[in-house]
Amino acid sequence: MTRMLTVGAAQLGPIARQDSRRDVVERMIALIEKAAARGVGLVVFPELALTTFFPRWFMEDQAEVDAFFETSMPNADTQPLFDRARALKIGFSFGYGELVEEGGETHRYNTAILVDAAGNIVHRYRKIHLPGHSEHEPWRAFQHLEKRYFEPGMEPFSTCEAFGGVLSQAICNDRRWPETYREASLRGAEMLLIGYNTPVHYPLAPEHDHLQCFHNHLCMQAGAYANGIWVVGVAKAGKEEGCDLIGQSCIIAPTGEIVAMASTLGDELVVHDCDLDRCDEIRRNIFNFKLHRRPDMYPMLSAG
Amino acid sequence: MTRMLTVGAAQLGPIARQDSRRDVVERMIALIEKAAARGVGLVVFPELALTTFFPRWFMEDQAEVDAFFETSMPNADTQPLFDRARALKIGFSFGYGELVEEGGETHRYNTAILVDAAGNIVHRYRKIHLPGHSEHEPWRAFQHLEKRYFEPGMEPFSTCEAFGGVLSQAICNDRRWPETYREASLRGAEMLLIGYNTPVHYPLAPEHDHLQCFHNHLCMQAGAYANGIWVVGVAKAGKEEGCDLIGQSCIIAPTGEIVAMASTLGDELVVHDCDLDRCDEIRRNIFNFKLHRRPDMYPMLSAG
Repeated sequence: MTRMLTVGAAQLGPIARQDSRRDVVERMIALIEKAAARGVGLVVFPELALTTFFPRWFMEDQAEVDAFFETSMPNADTQPLFDRARALKIGFSFGYGELVEEGGETHRYNTAILVDAAGNIVHRYRKIHLPGHSEHEPWRAFQHLEKRYFEPGMEPFSTCEAFGGVLSQAICNDRRWPETYREASLRGAEMLLIGYNTPVHYPLAPEHDHLQCFHNHLCMQAGAYANGIWVVGVAKAGKEEGCDLIGQSCIIAPTGEIVAMASTLGDELVVHDCDLDRCDEIRRNIFNFKLHRRPDMYPMLSAG
Repeated sequence: MTRMLTVGAAQLGPIARQDSRRDVVERMIALIEKAAARGVGLVVFPELALTTFFPRWFMEDQAEVDAFFETSMPNADTQPLFDRARALKIGFSFGYGELVEEGGETHRYNTAILVDAAGNIVHRYRKIHLPGHSEHEPWRAFQHLEKRYFEPGMEPFSTCEAFGGVLSQAICNDRRWPETYREASLRGAEMLLIGYNTPVHYPLAPEHDHLQCFHNHLCMQAGAYANGIWVVGVAKAGKEEGCDLIGQSCIIAPTGEIVAMASTLGDELVVHDCDLDRCDEIRRNIFNFKLHRRPDMYPMLSAG
């Protein structure tokens, strides 16, 4: 008996600054319905799926920033998504700006949640690798102020048993760090869900702009293969508020092969039947961690 | 001023069991001379370059095994290689079975050395990730007895200042482990030299045989990009004693791009001008380790 999970990578096209959450949730529900019709059990949406990628703007008014955050989940805007998915018995994941009031302090995270087919939030992840900068840098064509608007997640990568397997989540820049995949898979993850917003233009090294799509796939394919896990990478894509974002959302097998990929820069669903037992092909053999890893020879990796 | 190092990846075709070291050294000298004529400063040869890949055979007589090892380096067989390279003012690296007598004990390693243009051995590396098995498994088309014939290296990845930069070495299976590249680059490596002997057929998961060349490049390209280092991967290739070994020896830029690749399965030299300063394009920006790595979030990586 195989543990088959049919996954839908639900790419979103651009979201304008003036688009409301309700506008976006309507688009997400349309993709959920399409996925349900195709027998999908889990739909994966991108990072910061409910709004435009707001860290591209420098804002001095904290209230203006906070308008892009959610203070509870589900909330009035996203409840229709939860309701429709539960009615269709389909699970989903998506990213959003999470504002937490705790002990008189306010915390803001770049967060992703996983919701099971019964509508329960079964996993939450707060982005560990925040890219970009914390001060306004007017020389850039656009900002990347994740280090200003978010606190880094303070909980290591974790997993949850759901959808018949062991799943984990990561967000955007996390996918470029081999540590992400390894930490998750050492904890038993069989599938890693990754949403991203990735500009074509990288102001710090524009000579690499033509390599963005190559790098996107390279790091996810290598992470899948080196750990024997399924990887689902999902973009917010297209020209968003004047900024070009890459697409090529994909589902990657534990062999590192891309087995499904988006072909547009808009709202698009691609589907694959993912056999979670295929992780063993890699993990019992070439990457049998217990037999072949040499943690005593990696003194630098966890050193501060 | 750039720090340009012209590198030659010197792939070797098959070496038969009855071929003598002198036969092989003659082939290596021919490649050294070709490289010198092309302005190469450093020639990289594969793993276990002096003999056939002997771990494919089960041998019960330790003397028969030890005949594949070197007890000193250079020795009478390899001295002509050292002499010719020094005369041409060219550096080189290669792998061999190293037998060490120490305090009444005998140790055997899968080793690689780096020799500078003056003929000095400036770096030695003993393979950390030994693949394969330690007992005879007659069901296999051929054995992979590295865990039987070698002890694992007990020194973490290290670097040396040579050829105008900071270089490190790894061997074959090491290249599949992201830890290899990260440990070397956290110590400042700008170029990683990797020799390999990789059969097309993997007895434990033959359904992946058609992916061997893909995996070979995937892990090295990802390691180069995720660490902003040059990677030189060099095969012993072709049909060796009835076993097909992959080729596709290559030089990979810090962007992860393959910039030179062998096109045969025989003795072949491919050359690239490697600007060591290009590592900074990656390491000062997207993979600025100090700014963006989160070692406190990687508790599992170095844990035993």
